[in-house]
Amino acid sequence: MALIVHKYGGTSMGTTERIRSVAQRVAKWARAGHQMVVVPSAMSGETNRLLGMAKELAPNSSTAEAQRELDAIAATGEQVSVGLLALALQSEGMQAVSYAGWQVPIATDSSFTKARITSIDDQRVRADLAVGKVVVITGFQGIDPQGHVTTLGRGGSDTSAVAIAAAMKADECLIYTDVDGVYTTDPRIVPEARRLTTVSFEEMLEMASMGSKVLQIRSVEFAGKYRVPLRVLSSFTPWDIPVEEEARSGTLITFEEDEKMEQAVVSGIAFNRDEAKITVIGVPDKPGIAFQILGPVAEANIDVDVIIQNVSHDGRTDFSFTVHRNDYQRTMDLLKNSVAPTLGASQVRGDPKICKVSIVGIGMRSHVGVASRMFRTLSEDGINIQMISTSEIKTSVVIDEKYMELAVRALHKAFDLDMPTQE
Amino acid sequence: MALIVHKYGGTSMGTTERIRSVAQRVAKWARAGHQMVVVPSAMSGETNRLLGMAKELAPNSSTAEAQRELDAIAATGEQVSVGLLALALQSEGMQAVSYAGWQVPIATDSSFTKARITSIDDQRVRADLAVGKVVVITGFQGIDPQGHVTTLGRGGSDTSAVAIAAAMKADECLIYTDVDGVYTTDPRIVPEARRLTTVSFEEMLEMASMGSKVLQIRSVEFAGKYRVPLRVLSSFTPWDIPVEEEARSGTLITFEEDEKMEQAVVSGIAFNRDEAKITVIGVPDKPGIAFQILGPVAEANIDVDVIIQNVSHDGRTDFSFTVHRNDYQRTMDLLKNSVAPTLGASQVRGDPKICKVSIVGIGMRSHVGVASRMFRTLSEDGINIQMISTSEIKTSVVIDEKYMELAVRALHKAFDLDMPTQE
Repeated sequence: MALIVHKYGGTSMGTTERIRSVAQRVAKWARAGHQMVVVPSAMSGETNRLLGMAKELAPNSSTAEAQRELDAIAATGEQVSVGLLALALQSEGMQAVSYAGWQVPIATDSSFTKARITSIDDQRVRADLAVGKVVVITGFQGIDPQGHVTTLGRGGSDTSAVAIAAAMKADECLIYTDVDGVYTTDPRIVPEARRLTTVSFEEMLEMASMGSKVLQIRSVEFAGKYRVPLRVLSSFTPWDIPVEEEARSGTLITFEEDEKMEQAVVSGIAFNRDEAKITVIGVPDKPGIAFQILGPVAEANIDVDVIIQNVSHDGRTDFSFTVHRNDYQRTMDLLKNSVAPTLGASQVRGDPKICKVSIVGIGMRSHVGVASRMFRTLSEDGINIQMISTSEIKTSVVIDEKYMELAVRALHKAFDLDMPTQE
Repeated sequence: MALIVHKYGGTSMGTTERIRSVAQRVAKWARAGHQMVVVPSAMSGETNRLLGMAKELAPNSSTAEAQRELDAIAATGEQVSVGLLALALQSEGMQAVSYAGWQVPIATDSSFTKARITSIDDQRVRADLAVGKVVVITGFQGIDPQGHVTTLGRGGSDTSAVAIAAAMKADECLIYTDVDGVYTTDPRIVPEARRLTTVSFEEMLEMASMGSKVLQIRSVEFAGKYRVPLRVLSSFTPWDIPVEEEARSGTLITFEEDEKMEQAVVSGIAFNRDEAKITVIGVPDKPGIAFQILGPVAEANIDVDVIIQNVSHDGRTDFSFTVHRNDYQRTMDLLKNSVAPTLGASQVRGDPKICKVSIVGIGMRSHVGVASRMFRTLSEDGINIQMISTSEIKTSVVIDEKYMELAVRALHKAFDLDMPTQE
């Protein structure tokens, strides 16, 4: 008998029929002898409906007071889901009980709309499991020290599920989603893309942050920190396939280094075309320059991704970074109008038509020549590399947006990801 | 400066535009210097939508476990309302904060779907009022000793508003609804019906229970018990009429006997055509007979209204009562198949085509001849009286349904309710 956490997304909870099918799947696991905790998202569309009404009434809702209300409103979406799922489980003949985050309680800080979980008291849930109940807990939300309802931000239900699994030392946390696992790259771009049966935590982290939007990155970080075995699998398989078969499906995210010794050097190709590149040219190369450029950007609440500063010559250097494409114009204005003149930079150049392509693989650490194989592959296809950024398990290049598909396909082939591996 | 509680029904909260108008009205009262607590219902249709989904998933939800979930689901309707209204108030420039029942907390017993309020802790709300905030509190719900969310049953928001007003010793509780007050009778039946500027608590109680569905009877009982001044008024008056004018509109429900000394003998005519009459004929007149008949009826969860047992002759008597028309067939079957044979009653007769008409007035207590005037009026119009039931401030008759309008109009005229009174 294992303690298992299931997490279901909004699409899986989208209609009463789908909720019934989730209940049947969970009941199957419980009947197989497992202790079950389930974390469902709000029914798809519900959070947007609720926040849409809120926006009509308060177009400017940036104050803490307003954000507190937004959280209280948005949190009801999951509260409806857990109640409906508990009822559906009861109709399947199970004992089931639902809890809102504040009832568990799941304690968070007071950062409304983007709160962080600080602790989870699992006494109440354990007592229910001990008497054979399935426990259904709201994702996405908690309660702050003053007793206000908070939400974790979009995708927070993944984080809730992993945090609950961590707090309860669950044997596995299964994230049911609309894809059947983590792929070597996006199958819409490379039809030969393969599902990985396992992927390391670090690789998953790099893939998630690079646009393989299978899991929220925060939930992966959480899983890594507490070493929660995490499995991504499809909620579209028939609910009545045998538990043993379902338990082996999808992709398992592992934390055991040695298991990975013999695996391929590169696990996957990630990409992202939502970025824009900005270069500040001819800035004086002296201490504090990075902060003087990026400080005002951060203050304007603009997230920066890749940052590159090359060696200087003649006491001047070029400083480049990428931002989300939606923030491109705002960032350019900020730099041109205030930052660059202050610094005495000679020019600010930008390009919103770029993309980032990365190879990700824990095997890279011990294999030389992986990056150079990447660069050679791109050059063979005539693709010019504009920026390069590397980490221990990832090498990213910024290239012209129009070459993205070509680059991804070429790299997928070059690193033998098209080949089936032994599982 | 007064402490004022406003309650708004689901229609008043039905759209974001209407919520904005509620916010403008409340802001007007706050700007006039009052401390404001607001209790809104769920947006109209929302509770039915939520419970509809629940019913699809759990057609039989009579267990305590299921009812607990139904309450958790239904309670979200008001939780959305309070958040939206708080945001709308903030957009009007007010400081505002919302609370769910469990946050106040409003403590209830554990009777899911029909819980009763046991206590309200007003410390948190008072602290907010003291710093100038408008406090918006969910109606219809609370939290039980085990930390489960409970609901008070349909119409429970009226009760919540009155209970909060009682706990906080509010100066007045204003119930905004889709009628502009309490009338001498239903204006759809008697066009000359007048709005009462005041009505006594006892009269209101009788009128509410008799079908003048302006207020939930439980909320009126609560108001009487704690002597909360209660005003029923229209939410359809323009939000920007002067506060002084609005404060005098509608109907005030009073608890001061002496204020009523000079008022009319009869305040209003109530009626109800949702009932059915059942008579058990020839039951042995011995102790315990009423319980033997009505015990099984109560056990089957059937509410009984009027009960009449007349004097016996030959050791046998006839026992009559009325039930809701929807329960008629079930009650007849129950009596015919099990109760009557056990008792040795000779026959069970029923009539679903009846109605109940009542005259209500605190002045009746000290005026003889009121009932007889009622009976004479009905006889002059050829209306046969089937049952009579009296209390200190009410006289009810059961008559053939087809005479209902005729009876109400004749009585309205006979007791001079058509005449304007000095206000």
